[in-house]
Amino acid sequence: MARSTPHPPLAAGPVRPTAGARSVLRPVGGADIEGGFWRRRRAVNADVCIPQGPVLLEAAGNLHDLRLAAGGAHGDYRGDYPFMDSDVYKWLEAAAWQLAGSDDPRLSADVERIAGLVAAAQEPDGYLNTWFQVTRDGRRYEDLRWGHELYCAGHLIQAGVAHHRSTGAKELLEVAVRFADHIDATFGPGRPIDGFDGHPEVETALVELYRETGERRYLNLAAYFVDRRGHGVLGGEAYCQDRVPLTAQQNVEGHAVRQLYLLSAAADLAAEAGDEELLTTCERLWSAMVATKTHITGGLGAHHDEEDFGDPYELPTERAYCETCAAVASVHFSWRMALLTGRARYSDLVERTLFNGFLAGMSLEGERWLYVNPLQVRDGHTDGGGDQSARRTRWFRCACCPPNAMRLMASLEHYVASRDDAGLQIHQYASGRYGGEVLGASRFVSVHTEYPWSGRVRLTVEETPGDRPWTLSLRIPQWSGNHDLSVAGEWVEAANDDGWLRLERVWSPGDEVILDLEMRPRLVEADRRADAVRGCVAIERGPLVYCLEGADHPGGGLDDIVIDPARPLSAVERPGLLGGVTVVTGAGRRRTPAQTGWWPYRPAGEAEGTDAVHGPHQDSELVLTAIPYYAWANRQDGPMRVWIPTS
Amino acid sequence: MARSTPHPPLAAGPVRPTAGARSVLRPVGGADIEGGFWRRRRAVNADVCIPQGPVLLEAAGNLHDLRLAAGGAHGDYRGDYPFMDSDVYKWLEAAAWQLAGSDDPRLSADVERIAGLVAAAQEPDGYLNTWFQVTRDGRRYEDLRWGHELYCAGHLIQAGVAHHRSTGAKELLEVAVRFADHIDATFGPGRPIDGFDGHPEVETALVELYRETGERRYLNLAAYFVDRRGHGVLGGEAYCQDRVPLTAQQNVEGHAVRQLYLLSAAADLAAEAGDEELLTTCERLWSAMVATKTHITGGLGAHHDEEDFGDPYELPTERAYCETCAAVASVHFSWRMALLTGRARYSDLVERTLFNGFLAGMSLEGERWLYVNPLQVRDGHTDGGGDQSARRTRWFRCACCPPNAMRLMASLEHYVASRDDAGLQIHQYASGRYGGEVLGASRFVSVHTEYPWSGRVRLTVEETPGDRPWTLSLRIPQWSGNHDLSVAGEWVEAANDDGWLRLERVWSPGDEVILDLEMRPRLVEADRRADAVRGCVAIERGPLVYCLEGADHPGGGLDDIVIDPARPLSAVERPGLLGGVTVVTGAGRRRTPAQTGWWPYRPAGEAEGTDAVHGPHQDSELVLTAIPYYAWANRQDGPMRVWIPTS
Repeated sequence: MARSTPHPPLAAGPVRPTAGARSVLRPVGGADIEGGFWRRRRAVNADVCIPQGPVLLEAAGNLHDLRLAAGGAHGDYRGDYPFMDSDVYKWLEAAAWQLAGSDDPRLSADVERIAGLVAAAQEPDGYLNTWFQVTRDGRRYEDLRWGHELYCAGHLIQAGVAHHRSTGAKELLEVAVRFADHIDATFGPGRPIDGFDGHPEVETALVELYRETGERRYLNLAAYFVDRRGHGVLGGEAYCQDRVPLTAQQNVEGHAVRQLYLLSAAADLAAEAGDEELLTTCERLWSAMVATKTHITGGLGAHHDEEDFGDPYELPTERAYCETCAAVASVHFSWRMALLTGRARYSDLVERTLFNGFLAGMSLEGERWLYVNPLQVRDGHTDGGGDQSARRTRWFRCACCPPNAMRLMASLEHYVASRDDAGLQIHQYASGRYGGEVLGASRFVSVHTEYPWSGRVRLTVEETPGDRPWTLSLRIPQWSGNHDLSVAGEWVEAANDDGWLRLERVWSPGDEVILDLEMRPRLVEADRRADAVRGCVAIERGPLVYCLEGADHPGGGLDDIVIDPARPLSAVERPGLLGGVTVVTGAGRRRTPAQTGWWPYRPAGEAEGTDAVHGPHQDSELVLTAIPYYAWANRQDGPMRVWIPTS
Repeated sequence: MARSTPHPPLAAGPVRPTAGARSVLRPVGGADIEGGFWRRRRAVNADVCIPQGPVLLEAAGNLHDLRLAAGGAHGDYRGDYPFMDSDVYKWLEAAAWQLAGSDDPRLSADVERIAGLVAAAQEPDGYLNTWFQVTRDGRRYEDLRWGHELYCAGHLIQAGVAHHRSTGAKELLEVAVRFADHIDATFGPGRPIDGFDGHPEVETALVELYRETGERRYLNLAAYFVDRRGHGVLGGEAYCQDRVPLTAQQNVEGHAVRQLYLLSAAADLAAEAGDEELLTTCERLWSAMVATKTHITGGLGAHHDEEDFGDPYELPTERAYCETCAAVASVHFSWRMALLTGRARYSDLVERTLFNGFLAGMSLEGERWLYVNPLQVRDGHTDGGGDQSARRTRWFRCACCPPNAMRLMASLEHYVASRDDAGLQIHQYASGRYGGEVLGASRFVSVHTEYPWSGRVRLTVEETPGDRPWTLSLRIPQWSGNHDLSVAGEWVEAANDDGWLRLERVWSPGDEVILDLEMRPRLVEADRRADAVRGCVAIERGPLVYCLEGADHPGGGLDDIVIDPARPLSAVERPGLLGGVTVVTGAGRRRTPAQTGWWPYRPAGEAEGTDAVHGPHQDSELVLTAIPYYAWANRQDGPMRVWIPTS
C-alpha cells in the first residue's frame, strides 16, 4: 500500500541554499506529488523498493559488515568493494525522504535499527568505513584513489541531513557530523593529509551539511576538496577527476558519475561561496556535456571501460553506458544549476532524464534494475550477465544504482517547483501541490495533469493573498512545438522567455491556468557528428523517448526493420500494456536479410543480394509499435532499439 | 642493416602437419621473401624490433623475473601480470624464426643467453612460471582462470619448436618438453587436476610439439584441453572459453584472442586427429565470425571491456578493439583452415588482416606499437594513454602484442605458398621464391611484384622437371574485380574456381605467368546491419584499406568531412610519404559546423542551422587524401577515420 503523505510536507529537500546564497531561485517549502504518472512510479518506490532495502542489504552482506565493524558479528567481510557502506547510506537517505511527513512505523523502525548499526560501527574518533576497519586493520586513507572512504562519508552525511530534515531526528546527523569533523581534522592545509577522494561525493554533502548546521568549516573543506583536484595529487587521471583543475576543463571527462558529483559540488560552491569562476565553469561544462555527450534519453557516459564519458559526439547505442547513477547525478547537477541561474534548460534536461534515462533503470514492479541503460539490444544479443548486463537484475555486486534511484524517487517532489522574488516557477508537470512562503505570504498552486500521456496541464491557484501581482512561471519544454494557454478561462498568448512563460497578475484562489502542450508524436534526428545514429530517427512524444522492442514485433529481425519517415505516426492509448502507456505506431518495412555471402562489405552502390547467388530482397511492410523507453525490458529479454534506420 | 637470408631456407614454418594429417594443402619446404613490400616491412622487424627486444624485456623486468626465479637476482618481482614470461617466449620465437638460415651471431648470442635464463628458471620437475614461483611461493595451478601458467607454457613450447626448426638447436626445445611432460603428468583423466587454462594457447602449441617430436601424448593432451571446455570447470564464462563446448557454439564469442587461439588448436586437431566435428565447427565459426564480427581491416574484437567479440554486426569504429594480438591469432587460425580445406577465402582474410589490421599495430620505424586498432579517432579525441590508447606507445604494461607481431612478421614467408598433390599454390603476392619437394621433385616459383602498389604479379617457374603437367594455382583476391592473365607470353582465360586460378600444364624453367589485378580505387559499404557505419563508405585499393588522417586535412574538422561518392577516385604515388605509399584522392566537402544550439537532437528533416539564430551552412569543397590504414598515426597524433559519411 502506498503511504499517504499529508500535504504540504514541511521538510526541505536535498538542496537548500542558505539565505546568503547567490541562487536565483529557491526551493519551495511545500511540495507534494499527489497523483498522476509520478505518483504511481513513486508508489512502487515506496511500497516495493524501499521496504525491500533492508532485506537486500542483509542478503548482500552490507549490514553484516557494519556489525563486523561494530564487533557485533563474526565471519568474513562480505562484498567486493570498499564502498559497501554507501549502499546502506543511500538507502537510509531514501527512507528518510520517504518518512517526510508520513507515518510509517515499520519503515521508521528499520531506519532506526540500521542507523543504530551505523552508529555502532563508527570509531570513537569519528572514522567509519567497514571495509578498511575489517579487512585492512583500520589502515585509513592509504588508497584515496580507490578507497572511497570520503565518498562513503558523503553519502552518510547526506543520509544524516535527509533524516534530520525529514523527521527532525538528530542521531544519524550526529554520526555524520562526527565523521565530518574527523575528516576536517585530517584533510587540508596544515592537516595530516593533503588530498581528496578519487570519487567525488563528500564535497556536495559537506556543502549540504554546512547548510544544515551553519558550520562554515564544512563549506571550506568542500571548497578545498574541489580546488585540490587537477594537480596530480592522485596521479593525474581524468578517471579520478584529477587531470586538470575543474576550472580548466573545456568539456566533461573521465568517470561520468564522478564528474557529475563534482560538478554538483561546484554548483553548490558557486551558490554558497559566490564563486564566479565556478559558476561559469559549471555553465560551460553543462553546455558542452549536453551539446556533445548526452544521449537522447538524457543518459550520460559512453564507455563501459572506466565508465568514461568518451569523446564529443561519441554516442553509441548498444554500448551506451548511461549508468543509472549518472542519470541521478545529472539531475542533481542540473537542478542545482536551475536554482543557481533560473534558466529553464536545466529543468528541460531534468525532465528528459527523469522520464527516460533515469526511469528505465527501475523496473515497473520495482524489483529489478538496470545498471547500464543501452539504446539498443541486438537480435541475438548475448552478454555474460553481471552488473553491466543489458538484462534487468535483482541486485548488483556493485549495488550503487538501486538505492541511488530510490533516494531520487523519494525526494522527487523537491525538483518540481521553485520560488523567487517574483513568484513561483513550475519546472515539472506532476500532479500535486507546490508552494509555501513566497513574497512574504503563503502561496500554493495545485497541478492536475495526466502528463506525459496528455499535454493538458491544469494549474489552480490554491492559496494566495490577493493584494498584489505576482508571477506564475511555467516551463515550456524544449521538445514542445505549439502550445495553447488559457488563464482564468481566457486564451492568452505569452512570450516564451527562453523556456519560461511568465504569467504576472493579481492571482486569486481558484484562478485556473490551462496549458496545452502539443503531444503529436515526432521523429527526431541527431547532430550529424553523432556517427552511431547516422541515417536513423528516434520517436518521441512529449517528454518521452520511444523504442521498438522485440515483444511487439514478432517474427524476429528487429535489426532488419526500417521506418518510413514520410508516413504519419499515431498515438494509441494502451491502458493494459506495461502499467498503462500510450504507444506510437508508424509504418515500416522488414527487410528480408540479404545473403551477403561470406564477406560483409561490398562495392558502394551495389544492391544487397542482387547477384545470381543471393537473389533479390523481399521486403514486407509492417506496422511499427513503439513503447516508451522507460518501460523496455519489462516483458521479456529480447532486442530493442531507440534509433531506427530510415532506409 | 637487414639480414641476408640464403634461399631457400630449409626450416619448416610454425605449422607443419604430419604426413597423416587430413590437411588438403601442405606448407612448402622452401619459402623466402626477397623483395617488395613485405621485404621492407620485415627488414624493420629484423633490424629494429627484434634486436631491441632484449633491451625492452630487460627494462620491463621480464628478464629480471627469470633471474629471480633462478635464484640469480634479488629484489621485487617486476610487472603486473602472471604472464610476464610469455613476452620473453614470444620474443624468443620471433628471434628463432629470424635466425632461420641466417647468420647473425649477435642475435644468436642473445637467444642463447635468454634461453639459458629460461632454462635456469625452470623447476626440477619441469614447472616454470616466474610469477607463481616468486610471488606465490610456488603455489601452482590455483587460479587456472587467470593464472596463465599453461598459456605461458604454450608460448615456451612454440619458442622451443621454432628454435629447433630454425637452427636445429635442442636446448630450448628440451626445456619445453620438460614443461610439457610436467603438464601431461598433472592434467587430464586420472591425473591430479581436471582443468585447463582460461587463456588457450598451450593447445595449439602441444599439437606442434607432437608434430616436432612425434610424441602422441601431446596431441592427446591438446585434445583433452579443447574437449574439457564448456562444462563449467572454470566457472562457465565465455571470457574463458568455457560457456559451452566449442562444438556447440554458433558464433565466435568471449575474449577474441582466447577464442582464436582455441580455434587454431581446433583446426590443428581436426587436421591431426581427423576430427570431422571439429572441422565443421571451425568452418562454421570462421564463417560466422567473418560475416558478422570482422571489421573491414580484418580486425577482430568489438569491446574494450573484457576484450570481447561483441554481438553480430556490432562493429564500432572509434571503440573497435581489434587487438593486434587478435590479428595475429586470426592469421594463425585462417592459415590452418587454408591448409586444412584448401579454400582460398581463408587466405583472403589472411591478406586483408596482414595488410591492414595487423600491420597497423607496428609503427613504420618499428619502435612504437598499437595494442588496439580503432577505425576512427575523433576531432579532439582524448584518452588516458596506457595500453589501450589510440596513440602509439613504446611498450605496454601488458606487452603481449609487440613480440606477437614480431613472431608473425619473422615467419611470414611460411604463409605465402603451399603444395598439394596437384602442384603449388600461391596464397599471397610477396616477391620471393617458393617451392620445395612437390610431386616427388624440386619445384620452385619466383614471384616479382610491387604489390600492393601495383597489381602486376610476375611469376617465373625457376625449377621443375619437365616430365609431366602440374598445377600452379594463384589466389584471386576477394576484393578483385577484373584481372588479366598471361602464361608464357600468351593471354589466357582461366576460370575462377572459388578464388583460385588453377593453371595446369607441363611447366618448364623460365615459364612466366603474369597476373594483372585491377587496382582501381574503390568505395565500399558495409552490410546494413553494421549500424556503426550506416551512411558511410570506405576507400580500398587492392588489398589495402585506406583512411583519412588529420595530417592531410589541415584546418581541423575531420568529422565535418563528407565524401562525394559520385566523383572519381584517383591513385597517386607518393614515394616520399610514409615510407612510400600510393594515396587515394577524392572529392568531398567540409561542412561548416552547424550551431546546433544547446540540444543536439532536432526534428527529423529539419535542416541543421536553418533557423534565425544559427544561420545557414557554408560548406567548402576540398580534395580528400586517403592514406593506407596501416600507415596511420605515424606522423602526428590527430583524428583519423576509415568510414566516411556520404552526406
